[in-house]
Amino acid sequence: MGELATLFGPRRVAVVGATDRDGSVGRAITENLLADFEGDVVAVNPTKDEVLGLESHDSVGAVPDVDVAVVVVPPPIVLDAIREAAEAGIRDVVVITAGFGESGSEGARRERELRELATEHDLNVVGPNSLGIMNTGVGLNATFGPENARDGSISFMSQSGAFVTAVVDWANDRNLGFHNVVSLGNKAVLDESDFVREWGEDPDTDVILGYLEDVVDGRAFVESAREVSGETPIVVVKSGRTEAGASAAASHTGAIAGSEEAYEAALDQAGVLRVDTVQDLFDFGSILAGQPLPERDGVAIVTNAGGPGVMTTDAVGDSDLSLASFTDDTVERFQDALPDEANVYNPVDIIGDAPVERFEDALDIALADPNVGAAVVLACPTATLSYEALADSVVDLQAEYDTPVAATLMGGSSARDANERLSQAGIPTYFDPARAVRSLDALREYRAIGDREYTEPETFDVDREAAREILESAARRDTNRLGVEAMDLLDAYGIPTPDGEIVDARSDAVDAAERIAPDGEVVMKIVSPDILHKSDIGGVAVGVPPEEVGDTYEDLVTRARNYQPDATILGVQVQEMVDLDSGVETIAGMNRDPQFGPLVLFGLGGIFVEVLEDTTLRLAPVSEPSAREMLSEIDAAPLLRGARGRDPVDEGSVVETLQRLSQLVTDFPAIVELDINPLVATPDGAQAVDVRLTIDQEQL
Amino acid sequence: MGELATLFGPRRVAVVGATDRDGSVGRAITENLLADFEGDVVAVNPTKDEVLGLESHDSVGAVPDVDVAVVVVPPPIVLDAIREAAEAGIRDVVVITAGFGESGSEGARRERELRELATEHDLNVVGPNSLGIMNTGVGLNATFGPENARDGSISFMSQSGAFVTAVVDWANDRNLGFHNVVSLGNKAVLDESDFVREWGEDPDTDVILGYLEDVVDGRAFVESAREVSGETPIVVVKSGRTEAGASAAASHTGAIAGSEEAYEAALDQAGVLRVDTVQDLFDFGSILAGQPLPERDGVAIVTNAGGPGVMTTDAVGDSDLSLASFTDDTVERFQDALPDEANVYNPVDIIGDAPVERFEDALDIALADPNVGAAVVLACPTATLSYEALADSVVDLQAEYDTPVAATLMGGSSARDANERLSQAGIPTYFDPARAVRSLDALREYRAIGDREYTEPETFDVDREAAREILESAARRDTNRLGVEAMDLLDAYGIPTPDGEIVDARSDAVDAAERIAPDGEVVMKIVSPDILHKSDIGGVAVGVPPEEVGDTYEDLVTRARNYQPDATILGVQVQEMVDLDSGVETIAGMNRDPQFGPLVLFGLGGIFVEVLEDTTLRLAPVSEPSAREMLSEIDAAPLLRGARGRDPVDEGSVVETLQRLSQLVTDFPAIVELDINPLVATPDGAQAVDVRLTIDQEQL
Repeated sequence: MGELATLFGPRRVAVVGATDRDGSVGRAITENLLADFEGDVVAVNPTKDEVLGLESHDSVGAVPDVDVAVVVVPPPIVLDAIREAAEAGIRDVVVITAGFGESGSEGARRERELRELATEHDLNVVGPNSLGIMNTGVGLNATFGPENARDGSISFMSQSGAFVTAVVDWANDRNLGFHNVVSLGNKAVLDESDFVREWGEDPDTDVILGYLEDVVDGRAFVESAREVSGETPIVVVKSGRTEAGASAAASHTGAIAGSEEAYEAALDQAGVLRVDTVQDLFDFGSILAGQPLPERDGVAIVTNAGGPGVMTTDAVGDSDLSLASFTDDTVERFQDALPDEANVYNPVDIIGDAPVERFEDALDIALADPNVGAAVVLACPTATLSYEALADSVVDLQAEYDTPVAATLMGGSSARDANERLSQAGIPTYFDPARAVRSLDALREYRAIGDREYTEPETFDVDREAAREILESAARRDTNRLGVEAMDLLDAYGIPTPDGEIVDARSDAVDAAERIAPDGEVVMKIVSPDILHKSDIGGVAVGVPPEEVGDTYEDLVTRARNYQPDATILGVQVQEMVDLDSGVETIAGMNRDPQFGPLVLFGLGGIFVEVLEDTTLRLAPVSEPSAREMLSEIDAAPLLRGARGRDPVDEGSVVETLQRLSQLVTDFPAIVELDINPLVATPDGAQAVDVRLTIDQEQL
Repeated sequence: MGELATLFGPRRVAVVGATDRDGSVGRAITENLLADFEGDVVAVNPTKDEVLGLESHDSVGAVPDVDVAVVVVPPPIVLDAIREAAEAGIRDVVVITAGFGESGSEGARRERELRELATEHDLNVVGPNSLGIMNTGVGLNATFGPENARDGSISFMSQSGAFVTAVVDWANDRNLGFHNVVSLGNKAVLDESDFVREWGEDPDTDVILGYLEDVVDGRAFVESAREVSGETPIVVVKSGRTEAGASAAASHTGAIAGSEEAYEAALDQAGVLRVDTVQDLFDFGSILAGQPLPERDGVAIVTNAGGPGVMTTDAVGDSDLSLASFTDDTVERFQDALPDEANVYNPVDIIGDAPVERFEDALDIALADPNVGAAVVLACPTATLSYEALADSVVDLQAEYDTPVAATLMGGSSARDANERLSQAGIPTYFDPARAVRSLDALREYRAIGDREYTEPETFDVDREAAREILESAARRDTNRLGVEAMDLLDAYGIPTPDGEIVDARSDAVDAAERIAPDGEVVMKIVSPDILHKSDIGGVAVGVPPEEVGDTYEDLVTRARNYQPDATILGVQVQEMVDLDSGVETIAGMNRDPQFGPLVLFGLGGIFVEVLEDTTLRLAPVSEPSAREMLSEIDAAPLLRGARGRDPVDEGSVVETLQRLSQLVTDFPAIVELDINPLVATPDGAQAVDVRLTIDQEQL
């Protein structure tokens, strides 16, 4: 156990504000604590002599050796109570009382003071505005909910207290147990990252589940989740996913949330299994707690009913699992064991008249096949089959092979006892076979997370000082938006750009063109911080031959002046022609999320970004394998690999550009937004043809 | 009721093969019939005097006035039994016996004879290989399943008998009732189309549910479903969706299935709500049977718990419903009725201490709002709230407003009674609020189906004879694949093509170019049925100036000869240049599905088809609104509407091309496959620049 060992495993708990008043929170908590807790319960309430049979103390400091103070006094005296506890040496506090950050400026002030107090005394504080905490391992129920959880190996945190009561009530009805339960409340001190870290070190927690509306510190959460998720699965509903949901969440928690895209990328990079629904949260949590991980993706389906077998096969087709191909040996064994009408290929149909022995034989043969990583046992009720006996066989065979199994014993009352037996043994069972398959697929997904190798992002040798000088010179000009004049910034970070020069006289333009492309064509672009869409005003000339460079220079400047007489014109960029025809236009960009910091974006340019929104994101810094993944996960990825008879582009060069971009935006928090568009990828490398960025001068 | 009125509502049913042998199917059926059936049950078995207290007759012809014969005799004597029944005037037969089409050539022959017998005597035959049928309206359970269904307004057909037993068992446990239930068996005579049509006319059937692995006659099914689906919702799981599932289905039913894409298009055009899972099938069926349709898309969420409220809002965001905006008046009413801390905007959070009266007030106000089309009542268990009382209020208010409501009373045992009360009143209730919202969204989707106006496909004035002559002349040349030489086929059907001519001499090429583009450039293409990929062998020349036409002619012919010396070369096509730059390359195509006939395809050309597979399909014939939908539903649709600063293309011209193409392929079943690629769409119209088709000479 980690730093919160005492919080979850106290020997003595004091209820500060204990009372026997009917219907009060103080009474509910005291009763819940008295019910099962293995340690001592102490009542603190200066207005009482006795509470529910306990001697009532005037102050928490009056009782020795208290490990945890559960505070339920009215808001104005919460801080005093905590101070008293801290001074008595108590380090772990659960604040049930509401009326803090969630309720106006007075509450917000109180919450700030609570945070300061916690820092001063190095306190672990749950809440405020929390339903409380549970640890079934020691019978601790320090909540005011109506029911205590059953014992289990799932630890669950929730940003909604009401949801905790609902879940515990529901889970008790379904033999689903918990190890720890935490109602996070306002997360003034302890937040999701703390509990993830704690449960990651807790041998009694097999799975971490969370309902979150935001995370307090995006980067800290990613870091702690990444450390834990390889060993302990973390499954999270992060609500406020949709626009409507996000605005509902904001009005509920008052938090400034990061963008949905940032959460999506962050949770994925942290190895968190993100789910969208309560059903998936507990389906996935249950199977992760109850079943081993599959060693391969092949699923065997064993059924007494062809039709449902087809539906289950469809569900496998929808998942990232596959239907296992049986070995010849397995097929032969099925042929020996099953009647002639049976289907000995996957899905194995053992025919409607199958007794339990035939089911058992078939499952045994299937689980022994080296291509089978998981199995679905699928049955419809028949006169010849005892569901209870089938459940027993499935439990035994699952244990014998230690291969994950999910069940669908279809039916209502006829399946109830069998389903109870299966779920008690940790084998999930659903009426809908698609749910069984989905759960197995969650095991596969988690196995893939466990298999990830974390690669430290590479640090390239760059000219950081040159980059700083470019940004600072922009700041000195009081410019927040930069365009092609910032190509040097890319050069400084080793991102390939076409040869180019910014000139501010006709003759210099001619000289530059002569140097860049002797006798060849060049591209010319107006350079002005005030003109964002150069193409729209005819500010870009492509394929300019040597004899027209001078006139084109004049022409571009005139157009810019006509378009916006007061625009600052820095000059004209003369640039090497990049052969767009042999290349693919991509875009590499960055935006900075309030919660998670810089996010690196990749996609194909043009319609792919603008119309199809076919892009992908990663939190910076981006490692090499991670940048490579970005290239492969966009829909248009085949175009990079040389679709339609073209040569594949040099992916390595694009990958390195993304890494170098990631380093640049990590080094300079002043860069708020940056787009390399297009980044032209050809078989010979990538080149950044244009760039646009926004800086925040305060951050320099 | 329709043609199957007697089948489902007989006065006298004979069990042919009735027996009292333990564990036999004949006994199970006789017992099930004796249990609740309002009419008479007659036993037929020449080897018995009495069966289960019934006099046993030697032949079904020996008893007068039998309406339905349920046949359970061994396979070899099934046909005799049916013939006897037919001769006794019985028109409705349920064949339980297996050993027909599903089992070898002997069985297949038997099934063919059964079909002939049915045609000869005009029989309605269910099965063979069926579990039987039920009609709870008259207590008819002519199945050998272990349980009878409860009474309800859902009629359910299933291509899997095992699934019927599972569903009935499960549904009985959940207060879900059925009106009719049919196990379709091998569908030798009566198939899904017959039952859809029957139930569409049945006032006791509110919803039709189906589990199908194939349909017997694709076009007939679409027609009957389209007739019915406007009045009675049809929800179907069509399994074998995925590649793995399709091959499992083929081995299960032995049917040659249509393609998944064809089913998808056909079910959609037929107004069938297609679902992928058993859970959705019954969730959607239940709400469609229990709740009215929403008059608008706005959903009100009323909850005592903020967190679950956010999750529910996310679920609304995921759906095609929207969060209702309340009127000012409604907001004021909430402000008056609710405590200060409440959220009076949607989702309405009435705060954790809400008693049932506050829930009732809030729901009442919400349902009265003119922007609210449906409501979700969402509660977590609290000490102040009685779930049972809440359920009563919800049932009353739902009935009062006749607005659809779904509920999520979270919890386990604490919610059981309340949930039972709600579901008895037809209000769906789930632990996961996402499921409640999904169900409401199914109501919306069905409302949209009901709102569809069916437009008869237009018939254009075309030169059918010219088209026939082109196809027949190809057949005379024994050519199955046609290319640009078939452009005239498009002309005959009024599909715009660039001006062009096929020539077979150098001088004719020069003359043709002079006529088509005096002093301008032309496109030239080799014309050969043996060269499919003209571009790959350099068989296409674009932008040929007048002075090069002659040489280019020679060059193209030489290249073709070099590439394939024995190729039949029909000549060279000289074609008007089409300005690809101002246009969007689209593709209009057709392929013929074995089950559903011609399907018309539309998409953008190039990468959109090849890499992104961004296409859409319709069964021909395609009406104008339907063709217009095709243009709008591809992902790249914005490109047609003028994305990126371009002028929108003339969509009407593309739409008309799709309609005319649809007419062409409907008129000529000999056209097996046809692609117009590219069909160039510009602001001024669409032009078919190239075409390729395959014909089946047998069909001419």
